[in-house]
Amino acid sequence: MRALVLQEYSGPSGLSVLELPEPLPAAGQVLIKVAAAPVNPSDLSFLQGNYGIKKKLPAAPGLVGSGTVVASGSGLLGRYLTGKRVAFAALTSGHGSWADYALASVRQCIPLARSTSFADGANLIVNPMTVLGFFEIIKKQKSKAVIHTAAASSLGLMFLRESLVRGLEVIHIVRRKEQVEHLRSLGAAHVLDSSAGDFERQLRVLAGRLKADLAFDAIAGEMTRQLMQNMPARSRVVVYGGLSEQACQIHPGDLIFRDCVLEGFWLSAWMVKLPFYRLLQLTREVQQKETLITEVAHRVGLDDAVAAIEAYQRTMTGQKVLIEPGH
Amino acid sequence: MRALVLQEYSGPSGLSVLELPEPLPAAGQVLIKVAAAPVNPSDLSFLQGNYGIKKKLPAAPGLVGSGTVVASGSGLLGRYLTGKRVAFAALTSGHGSWADYALASVRQCIPLARSTSFADGANLIVNPMTVLGFFEIIKKQKSKAVIHTAAASSLGLMFLRESLVRGLEVIHIVRRKEQVEHLRSLGAAHVLDSSAGDFERQLRVLAGRLKADLAFDAIAGEMTRQLMQNMPARSRVVVYGGLSEQACQIHPGDLIFRDCVLEGFWLSAWMVKLPFYRLLQLTREVQQKETLITEVAHRVGLDDAVAAIEAYQRTMTGQKVLIEPGH
Repeated sequence: MRALVLQEYSGPSGLSVLELPEPLPAAGQVLIKVAAAPVNPSDLSFLQGNYGIKKKLPAAPGLVGSGTVVASGSGLLGRYLTGKRVAFAALTSGHGSWADYALASVRQCIPLARSTSFADGANLIVNPMTVLGFFEIIKKQKSKAVIHTAAASSLGLMFLRESLVRGLEVIHIVRRKEQVEHLRSLGAAHVLDSSAGDFERQLRVLAGRLKADLAFDAIAGEMTRQLMQNMPARSRVVVYGGLSEQACQIHPGDLIFRDCVLEGFWLSAWMVKLPFYRLLQLTREVQQKETLITEVAHRVGLDDAVAAIEAYQRTMTGQKVLIEPGH
Repeated sequence: MRALVLQEYSGPSGLSVLELPEPLPAAGQVLIKVAAAPVNPSDLSFLQGNYGIKKKLPAAPGLVGSGTVVASGSGLLGRYLTGKRVAFAALTSGHGSWADYALASVRQCIPLARSTSFADGANLIVNPMTVLGFFEIIKKQKSKAVIHTAAASSLGLMFLRESLVRGLEVIHIVRRKEQVEHLRSLGAAHVLDSSAGDFERQLRVLAGRLKADLAFDAIAGEMTRQLMQNMPARSRVVVYGGLSEQACQIHPGDLIFRDCVLEGFWLSAWMVKLPFYRLLQLTREVQQKETLITEVAHRVGLDDAVAAIEAYQRTMTGQKVLIEPGH
């Protein structure tokens, strides 16, 4: 089979297309003929060795994808899945989804509805499930309003659509002026530009008025400090990405005197903790909701993937890349 | 009366001794003839305007003290306290404890046992109650072992004594080699020097072996990152001071992939939330325990206080300064 293979944890430049033997499914695994595999910020972290999972290299990256199960190791669930169209996560050892074939644990396969395309299936897990995870945290925290950074990302736009449907007040933080207009045109009521001179003052006023006591931060670095310092007392900042590639800055006074808390969210860990019936429920919900569809900007084959990944890394907006190995 | 008065939030240099009118107790307040008032790190933060409470200046600093109640505003509890020896906190508006007389809310006065000296009474609230607060957090978190930074401070030595009595494993982190020997001589089993070249490796090995999943950090800055990054997954770092005067650094990966949490502890907020009977229980416990006595290194009158405070700020060790206005 052909695969995009990572030789060292040095970002997209460490990738090359190679010819490899087809992998064999072990017990509890299935072999999937990959139809589509997205490039997400988590994949970029993986390429740099900064993701929560590090595989022995060389290996094909690609944390999730969609395709058809063509073979299975021993086990009932594997036999049931054979021939079925699935979304899958390739989090365990071995090659990932950026290849003609991938291995996945049967527990990390989600059968696709007939109406779900492979493209939508490939994007079913990461962004939609993260958005649903956020809403579970919002429910638990009983927040009336929340803050989201990197709000112009694919995930950001999805969170915007879903928050409009649910009637949740969200302060969307973007990094460029033109993104403010874009999000407003999609219906966002509160959009702040973090490059504006009076950003922190605006954030403080708005977060205070809306009582926004929960923030989801994909950026880290200075942004985390700006969030916590300008949110009401007893706020919670949930970091789920590190796009700035900087350490979170936190003013000790916000922790000590204003009782704020900093924590993280990892989709994989959250999904593993979900009861299986709840996981199936949520993935079915994802396939029924138009708000949770990811728009794909570029579809590429394996040969054009590296250039597309590099371009995606430079812009980091909602311009989603989908790798189709059979392209 | 004479008082040490802060003119602006510029540290000890903003202090001078002035003659002021004696304050008058309002309803729910008592007037205390101050016997002794300590200089704690929280006072140093107050002098710089970095504490959770900011008073309108000019005002006498001094967050806690001990003395005799000589008058009261209206109210039963105030009349009961009149003539009694008390420890008190002066957290509300007006002058603090670095003066001949101070005002305190009746709810922030703790009657002293006959066997408790004014010197011990003055130190009864801040460090001992913080140590007892830590142990309530340790109990809640069910930690088998914890980490403490700035472990050579007055509070650090008190925490060490109490942890030995309770049989709790503690990794004490100090900033100088000679402090390692000092803490070992007092019975500490695990002392690390953060200035050592392989500090982080040592911390990782020890925290992993002891399963130290809770840290109390008085330093912030780089130290917070070093702690979280080298503790086991699902650890909690509780910041209660900012001696480094730097923002806490936190690696986003520790929050996201290792499920660590960063939060704060503020004695005042914790004490306010305690039921009153529990507060009395704990302050009685403090007066009975030899482990919770603060050793005083320098006793000074108001005239020599500024120089002593400046010296304390330079060294920041267990060399505690006690101001005795009648000295």
